[in-house]
Amino acid sequence: MNHFLRATRKHFFRVSVNFLHSRRRYFSTERDLALPTKTIKSILESLAINNEVEVHGWIRSIRTQKNVSFANVNDGSSLKGLQVVLTNDEAKKLTTGACVKMRGILAKSPGDGQSKELQAHYVEILGECDSTYPLQKKYHSMEFLRDNSHLRPRSNTFGAIVRIRNTAVLGFQNFFQKNEFFQIHTPIITSSDCEGGGEVFKISANRPKETTENFTRKEDFFEMPVYLTVSGQLHAEMLACAMSRVFTFGPVFRAEGSLTSRHLAEFWMLEAEIACLFKLEELLYFTERCIRETTRYILDGCTQDIEFFDQRMNKELIARLENTTNNPFSCLSYSEAIDILSKANQKFEHTPKYGCSLYSEHEKYLATDYCRGPVFITDYPREIKPFYMRVNSDGETAACTDLLVPDIGELVGGSLREERYDILEQNLKESNMIQENYQWYLDLRKYGTVPHGGFGVGFERYLQYLTGVENIRDVIPFPRAASYCKY
Amino acid sequence: MNHFLRATRKHFFRVSVNFLHSRRRYFSTERDLALPTKTIKSILESLAINNEVEVHGWIRSIRTQKNVSFANVNDGSSLKGLQVVLTNDEAKKLTTGACVKMRGILAKSPGDGQSKELQAHYVEILGECDSTYPLQKKYHSMEFLRDNSHLRPRSNTFGAIVRIRNTAVLGFQNFFQKNEFFQIHTPIITSSDCEGGGEVFKISANRPKETTENFTRKEDFFEMPVYLTVSGQLHAEMLACAMSRVFTFGPVFRAEGSLTSRHLAEFWMLEAEIACLFKLEELLYFTERCIRETTRYILDGCTQDIEFFDQRMNKELIARLENTTNNPFSCLSYSEAIDILSKANQKFEHTPKYGCSLYSEHEKYLATDYCRGPVFITDYPREIKPFYMRVNSDGETAACTDLLVPDIGELVGGSLREERYDILEQNLKESNMIQENYQWYLDLRKYGTVPHGGFGVGFERYLQYLTGVENIRDVIPFPRAASYCKY
Repeated sequence: MNHFLRATRKHFFRVSVNFLHSRRRYFSTERDLALPTKTIKSILESLAINNEVEVHGWIRSIRTQKNVSFANVNDGSSLKGLQVVLTNDEAKKLTTGACVKMRGILAKSPGDGQSKELQAHYVEILGECDSTYPLQKKYHSMEFLRDNSHLRPRSNTFGAIVRIRNTAVLGFQNFFQKNEFFQIHTPIITSSDCEGGGEVFKISANRPKETTENFTRKEDFFEMPVYLTVSGQLHAEMLACAMSRVFTFGPVFRAEGSLTSRHLAEFWMLEAEIACLFKLEELLYFTERCIRETTRYILDGCTQDIEFFDQRMNKELIARLENTTNNPFSCLSYSEAIDILSKANQKFEHTPKYGCSLYSEHEKYLATDYCRGPVFITDYPREIKPFYMRVNSDGETAACTDLLVPDIGELVGGSLREERYDILEQNLKESNMIQENYQWYLDLRKYGTVPHGGFGVGFERYLQYLTGVENIRDVIPFPRAASYCKY
Repeated sequence: MNHFLRATRKHFFRVSVNFLHSRRRYFSTERDLALPTKTIKSILESLAINNEVEVHGWIRSIRTQKNVSFANVNDGSSLKGLQVVLTNDEAKKLTTGACVKMRGILAKSPGDGQSKELQAHYVEILGECDSTYPLQKKYHSMEFLRDNSHLRPRSNTFGAIVRIRNTAVLGFQNFFQKNEFFQIHTPIITSSDCEGGGEVFKISANRPKETTENFTRKEDFFEMPVYLTVSGQLHAEMLACAMSRVFTFGPVFRAEGSLTSRHLAEFWMLEAEIACLFKLEELLYFTERCIRETTRYILDGCTQDIEFFDQRMNKELIARLENTTNNPFSCLSYSEAIDILSKANQKFEHTPKYGCSLYSEHEKYLATDYCRGPVFITDYPREIKPFYMRVNSDGETAACTDLLVPDIGELVGGSLREERYDILEQNLKESNMIQENYQWYLDLRKYGTVPHGGFGVGFERYLQYLTGVENIRDVIPFPRAASYCKY
């Protein structure tokens, strides 16, 4: 520590800065200061054997043989980690969960399961780990891991989830940039309520800073009731009606009391809005391409992780994802769907009925059993859909779609938006919404209105589809649900 | 409309789906269904003259000469839009703000200001716009535009902001992916309070769905007090202590009563956490590279928009940004900074004093006047910094830094995190925090602790730095502040 202090003072603080701009680097050499070690993934992928390397990571397991020991070291960069060959004496000092720094020579591995291994000649324990460590090498249930969310990313399962989440973000990002969209940021705190009803969280200011000179001393921080957003769509429309193609990716909220494996109080949603969209077909086609190309990107970028879930969670996972990327999605109108459900050789808890929303059991039947793949359901009755959806010329249905996928049900919801002022105004009235609060939304139809539409993808639902993980709380780092807000 | 309905029924609904997987496309030809028109930007960049093109966009201005008229059509894809040549008869039907679809031949433009123009032979008005349209072609103040946030993206200024925001996200994304980070998602609703005090928003569930069978009927939805997050750092640390390199980009919240041009109640923050970081120097170096490389990416990707701000907002903008990308940042310790401020030939409202936080006026003086560029201030006294910062070996200061930039002040805050269990426990006690609530955070130090650190960039502050825009409310689509939550 004294050494650190001296070094710091020497190289770091002795900087002369003055009006004449004589500015000196505080660094000895830049080379020393690149991030200290490469990740294990990049070492295994990019470095040839016989190279000297330094790694850091956490011990996942130790296996001691007669003359030599093997440690599996994982830094999160890949599922498998690095096999390190150690003397038995060195291995004795190590425990599962400890954080280590190791140096050695990268060698061809004679063992199964990896092509390279590290023959360590320097081992340093950065952080010890005693036997109370919850993640000892053995089977842990998903519930147990969830109760230890602060350590959960050190498990194979959740490490893979984090990597797939990252790649999925990139996949969507790439798709939308390629199609000339702008990523925008819609607000979390909002005074409008997109769906016109539903379970919302209310926000209140806590501990206002009364001493600040300009503080406006009101009961409400915002001087109006405000909520956590349930969707960025209406805000995205404002930007689409100027920038033409936009998408927003952010958290949305539902104060849903239901404690199911399908619901979170806070989840991420990807929402796209596209100006100059005239037909629902165009929206379906674009949505299909979005899901297909992003899924392809993830299959290619996270092969090892997806294979892990294929083996552990759902043996048909890869087949299903390949099918998603290779075959056209099916398409049924809502009334066709109701017909099919009515004739289905299956007992439903809720009887399918024209004019009612589809229940999760219906959605799953249509995608999993009937279509055996993704299926668009289109043109739902207007009455069961929000005010902003475009009214079809039959006057009865809306130009909208839900994309259903096997085992999950609804993955995407989209529609053309009502771009005609008079009809939108009428819709607001019929939905008992206060027109004054939506004048800005009507203004978009008054000043240069444009036929447009968009869709929203539930990000965690999509991750369930990609991984076969059954409970939605196991695909998000810190799940929030009724009675559940740990960390 | 009847035509649309017939076409829809014909191509779209007549799909046979059955158990034998005979699935048909609902599309006539895929080519018809790619997004209908290219953006103006990509037409101008990628298409040669004499090509027939179709565009859509909004009329920004119309100029009528003796024999011919010129309309400027903008679809948001670029600052300048497209010059369209029309007959005077066609131009008469058009108004500023109207949404149009046009077809014609791309031609070499004889005029100044553009190399190509569209000679239109088909003009269709998609959405009319009357003379009450607020954004008539004339000067509008930033305040006026802000009060019309739903139309604001149609102004040159805010359109440029949206494009720069998008490119900045991509710039950060590229930088972190290149350096092998995973993008993670930290929660918005949280039961912990990162900074240990401060102005937070409280959340309550509204309208609970009492009928749902599994609903837990409690007063609080989460059965504990929960808040909007002020920082994703502590959560990011949990993931860094498994995945090694992570970053999170999301909204954070402050219930600050102060109505200044520097504060928002909701803003976006980019936060990175890096495991195996041993020295503050490493953090400074990496932070500098992050800001420098992202700024370079934006200068290259948004040249036209940055030039616009250079001309309109701050004549020194490009020089300042070039300086940021080309020259090393300065560095001062906190005590050096206090020294410099004490001797400064300038009256401050708050007298600089060792042991006190720097005020905005101090920060601006150091970056703008003294260093004339970005400057890291390091090693602040422990007492004025949060409990999680690593204690230096002097026992008095923390291994932390603020990056100050001209005109803005603090842009980035970062530190090494206290990775030693005992010292962290002591810090919690001294900060009067309830240890039990942070046991998960202590656990990270108990089970395989690792020296680590990270930093956070205020995204809107960074956008102000990039654009010279003075009020932070003018760089975010829907600003939220005390008494202000429109839309």
